Amino acid sequence: MSDDALRYFFNPSSVAILGASRQIRKFGHTIFKNFVRSGYQGKVYPINPKAKDILGQKAYPSLADVPGPVDLAVIALPAAIVVKAFSDCIDKGVKAVVVISGGFKEAGPEGAQREAELTRLAQESGVRLIGPNCIGVFDPRSQVDTLFLPSYRLKRPTPGDIAFITQSGAFGSAVLDWAAAKNVGISKFISFGNMADVSESELLEFLVKDPQTKCIVAYLEGVRDGLYFLDVARRVTAQKPLVILKGGTTSAGQMATLSHTGSLAGDPALISGIFSQLGIIQAHNVEGLFDAARALAYQPLPKGPRLAIVTNAGGFGVLASDHAEKSGIPLVKLSSETKAALKLVVPPNSSLSNPVDLTGSANEEDYGKVLNIIAQDPCVDMLLVMVLVQTSSIESDVVDVLTEVNEIYSDIPLLACTVGGEYTEATLCMLEDNQIPSFPSPARAITAVRAIWDYAYYRQSLAPKPRRRRKRKCD
Amino acid sequence: MSDDALRYFFNPSSVAILGASRQIRKFGHTIFKNFVRSGYQGKVYPINPKAKDILGQKAYPSLADVPGPVDLAVIALPAAIVVKAFSDCIDKGVKAVVVISGGFKEAGPEGAQREAELTRLAQESGVRLIGPNCIGVFDPRSQVDTLFLPSYRLKRPTPGDIAFITQSGAFGSAVLDWAAAKNVGISKFISFGNMADVSESELLEFLVKDPQTKCIVAYLEGVRDGLYFLDVARRVTAQKPLVILKGGTTSAGQMATLSHTGSLAGDPALISGIFSQLGIIQAHNVEGLFDAARALAYQPLPKGPRLAIVTNAGGFGVLASDHAEKSGIPLVKLSSETKAALKLVVPPNSSLSNPVDLTGSANEEDYGKVLNIIAQDPCVDMLLVMVLVQTSSIESDVVDVLTEVNEIYSDIPLLACTVGGEYTEATLCMLEDNQIPSFPSPARAITAVRAIWDYAYYRQSLAPKPRRRRKRKCD
Repeated sequence: MSDDALRYFFNPSSVAILGASRQIRKFGHTIFKNFVRSGYQGKVYPINPKAKDILGQKAYPSLADVPGPVDLAVIALPAAIVVKAFSDCIDKGVKAVVVISGGFKEAGPEGAQREAELTRLAQESGVRLIGPNCIGVFDPRSQVDTLFLPSYRLKRPTPGDIAFITQSGAFGSAVLDWAAAKNVGISKFISFGNMADVSESELLEFLVKDPQTKCIVAYLEGVRDGLYFLDVARRVTAQKPLVILKGGTTSAGQMATLSHTGSLAGDPALISGIFSQLGIIQAHNVEGLFDAARALAYQPLPKGPRLAIVTNAGGFGVLASDHAEKSGIPLVKLSSETKAALKLVVPPNSSLSNPVDLTGSANEEDYGKVLNIIAQDPCVDMLLVMVLVQTSSIESDVVDVLTEVNEIYSDIPLLACTVGGEYTEATLCMLEDNQIPSFPSPARAITAVRAIWDYAYYRQSLAPKPRRRRKRKCD
Repeated sequence: MSDDALRYFFNPSSVAILGASRQIRKFGHTIFKNFVRSGYQGKVYPINPKAKDILGQKAYPSLADVPGPVDLAVIALPAAIVVKAFSDCIDKGVKAVVVISGGFKEAGPEGAQREAELTRLAQESGVRLIGPNCIGVFDPRSQVDTLFLPSYRLKRPTPGDIAFITQSGAFGSAVLDWAAAKNVGISKFISFGNMADVSESELLEFLVKDPQTKCIVAYLEGVRDGLYFLDVARRVTAQKPLVILKGGTTSAGQMATLSHTGSLAGDPALISGIFSQLGIIQAHNVEGLFDAARALAYQPLPKGPRLAIVTNAGGFGVLASDHAEKSGIPLVKLSSETKAALKLVVPPNSSLSNPVDLTGSANEEDYGKVLNIIAQDPCVDMLLVMVLVQTSSIESDVVDVLTEVNEIYSDIPLLACTVGGEYTEATLCMLEDNQIPSFPSPARAITAVRAIWDYAYYRQSLAPKPRRRRKRKCD
């Protein structure tokens, strides 16, 4: 059921904005401005029967008046005239349509009837429709941007490897804005709203084939067709990690979804069980969604669950150990050879057991030497590097050191954690730039560690291989 | 056992820095500079046998050469000469001493012997000692600041109501830096290190009497005297909330504490049980420590657990409902009177059930009207206001609206939640400035809700009063 027509949502040669307006508070104005100002390379046609020009560009009274073909149409019009506008799109031969407007299924019986009409027209014509009642599509590479929220409030993320689909537009806008602030790149963003036509499962099918997408994250309250979703999810997770935050996993949350997206949500334990069987990584909160995704998108899958922790702050090593044990992640016992090698390079008073505590006097070179030794211990499956940057012995070169370790030992996942204020935030962003997933607290780092191990374990179960021969038995 | 001499750590009339140095990389240099540059109002004496002046101020070759009395001495010298320096402090009549230097109990038998000597001298003389192996004291009102970390890496928080004590200096520095960035004020900070003399329990006894402190937070790996701690904690929580993050609650974490602070940690379930019986709020991660503390310091205690949620983003209402149910926090069923009153003021398509979803078109005035109605529902014990600020209908005046609601309904705890990037962060900081505890995710907001209810419930159990008469039965 996947449809190559979906590519027109992300790479249209031409775009028409139905409802483009001269009034800066109108959604259609912001959307038109996005296309004109953002670097989108195709043709852009503002459609408005009352304006001659908008932002200095010639406006067209109707879609039929547009001289050339139109790949993508964005409809930001009052609900009552959306069905007519969609008909116009079909007549014009438009390939894909985003309907931003609300006032459909979510707004009572009259709206539901309008929505049924949209569905019927889409199915009969084959013209694909995302929405209604959504914020639509953002692709940072092609600069397709139907988000009607001003960029000073909703910063747009840079190009990256993570695709993000969401049933809730507000959820999507808040998390996109967060991603932009944290230097987290995305490949494609889709707020799909009421799913009058294109469903969450079709988007998953499209994204699993998208070469720019390494990992898919989704916020879902319900799915349109349960069996189809199960089938698609199984095919997706065999190829790419899929991280889902499911809203409405409790009875209180389910009551709330009824009035929000009208989704019927399932039993929480059942959902967790299904996710686990399908190899879907379940996020348990907003933070966990992208924490897991970043680890999965940037880092290789671990061969096993054994974690080594290196820190310059004992307290954070203790907390990470606590969280690891609670998450079922074993701390690797370093070999006596590893410890002997470490002893020659660590600062005085360091602890050589895992977590390896280099103390506050460690500098970035100490980290480099120590990580080079630990990464060669055959029992180490994953590395968590905690670096407090408040101490003056650590220079920001530590980012280069970690990047180099990450490149050399490219088969061992490396995650970083640092806690603090502005200088720390800057360090987190630099690490992120170098594809080292980095976390502002031990708990969040360990959640990500657990996620990559869960997905690795699932993939191993699909294609059982002889276990990697370890040179020694590992504890 | 509490000692009024402890006040000299925070409000000394004169301070001597033993180990003050002209070399900017030395701890003693940074500490001396803190006192000279920060606005500390007392006398400051740099002690250095080799320098005539430091930062333009006359230096003294020894403590004995200081002309006037010295209330507080800060020792930042090599371990081998710290005992001698402490003796000099006793001879000079110093009231309180912070020993920054490491190289004691944490560094092997020789260090342990040195530390035993410090303990003996402190006990015999009555001169109180914080440390060794710590970063010492920060008081944002008196500007006592023994932190040897430069302020561009470790920003100092503003004056506030939360006292923060920590066994791990690095933990303290990272969290202080975080607090400064998030506009979280503190009353006093103490990194107490090895506890050669002043213990965590003595600090708690001092802080419970401190009028500037409304809430106490602590990072502990172990306690020096278990029975004394239990006794003190019970007296503290009868008067002020105490939030503790206990490092080493698992066997992996306990192994790590052994090499970090040498603390022996107890069984995790036992610790949780003891904390609960003593009315201590247990934080389960770094975030939870100050999330609980801010709610407890800024807001009144709720009469009951019933929560009302108001949102402009359905998805976040769903997630908050999920987290509330998982945390055992019931969502209040709004009365038909309340719903009828809401119906007259809410934007179209709003949901009037709890969570009340005002939709993305809500503006700050809508929030004001709605909160005024909900706060008057006699069944509402707590309010969680979620405001996504990506939408252009919300102006930053929403901060004033929430502040006013918070002032009018001063007996109902009000917490806020908003998710996003830079503009969101600015909103969070403004809310924080107005004593509205504000959280960057629904999960963290609900953790704080649960913490204030837990503490309120404990306080109610100490002094059982007839339950507040409700005008109607509440679900």
